[in-house]
Amino acid sequence: MRWDETIERSCPVARSLSLLGDRWTLLLILEVFLGSRRFEEFEALLGISPHLLSRRLARLVADGILRKEAYQQRPLRQHYRLTDKGRDLFPVVLGLMQWGNRWSMDAATPPTRLRHQRCGHAVEPRTVCSACGDVLRPRDVRVELSGKLRAERQALTDSYLDRKRA
Amino acid sequence: MRWDETIERSCPVARSLSLLGDRWTLLLILEVFLGSRRFEEFEALLGISPHLLSRRLARLVADGILRKEAYQQRPLRQHYRLTDKGRDLFPVVLGLMQWGNRWSMDAATPPTRLRHQRCGHAVEPRTVCSACGDVLRPRDVRVELSGKLRAERQALTDSYLDRKRA
Repeated sequence: MRWDETIERSCPVARSLSLLGDRWTLLLILEVFLGSRRFEEFEALLGISPHLLSRRLARLVADGILRKEAYQQRPLRQHYRLTDKGRDLFPVVLGLMQWGNRWSMDAATPPTRLRHQRCGHAVEPRTVCSACGDVLRPRDVRVELSGKLRAERQALTDSYLDRKRA
Repeated sequence: MRWDETIERSCPVARSLSLLGDRWTLLLILEVFLGSRRFEEFEALLGISPHLLSRRLARLVADGILRKEAYQQRPLRQHYRLTDKGRDLFPVVLGLMQWGNRWSMDAATPPTRLRHQRCGHAVEPRTVCSACGDVLRPRDVRVELSGKLRAERQALTDSYLDRKRA
């Protein structure tokens, strides 16, 4: 399967990754959460080529994750803001931050801390159940694939076994 | 900056993505959370070439995200399990699932549902504050970069401006 066919799959994670799976995309979205808006800020802070950056930004705008907004009229200058769809990636970015803090920092490299301004505390994100409020752990969660996705997965397995037998 | 230099950055998100930013890696990790363990299962369900799959699995083992485990002795057969470091990616995978469910499914493609077996309910993950329990929203969270990361970002900006002026 080619990568760009994953959007055809009925799996929400595959679909998310078909939009976000590019190496630079989530770093670019992190930059916007950190307050960067202008092309030059992304270029400087990511160390990405202007050509590649233009393509990634255009793709994020086309996918409705970022939107362009004029911040000056004469001459027209535009910068990039998160849409609701983009802001909704906050849990993913927090998850990557927390995992990196826990598993890839070292004594010489302190973690990035979060402060929850509503309660004033330095905090960690917790991923909890919307019904009971307990932390969601892999062993306690059953993932219920849709019938369509189960059928797709069965077809992939069947076709794989057919190829193996041939 | 080349992509593999991002691990040198003091940003936990950049470090996470230097391990996970490959297109197939998070899909592969999702498969393990869904219960797949064997090479052939990954090959069938991801539709990935055996060569690429071998490389991705070896990399995940080297990075301590998956571990190999013998499930049969004669002949020796091994499969793949998540380590603690790998299981700790559960919030990231849930975040991608929830975002995909919300933003990229359609009438013909139902979402993937989660059931929290401890409380029995069909649930959504919520990313909340470890101190007060409220949902963490972008506008309420201040990201406090370490001094080291702030200095790196300042140096990137300075060097960019120097290049622009030259």
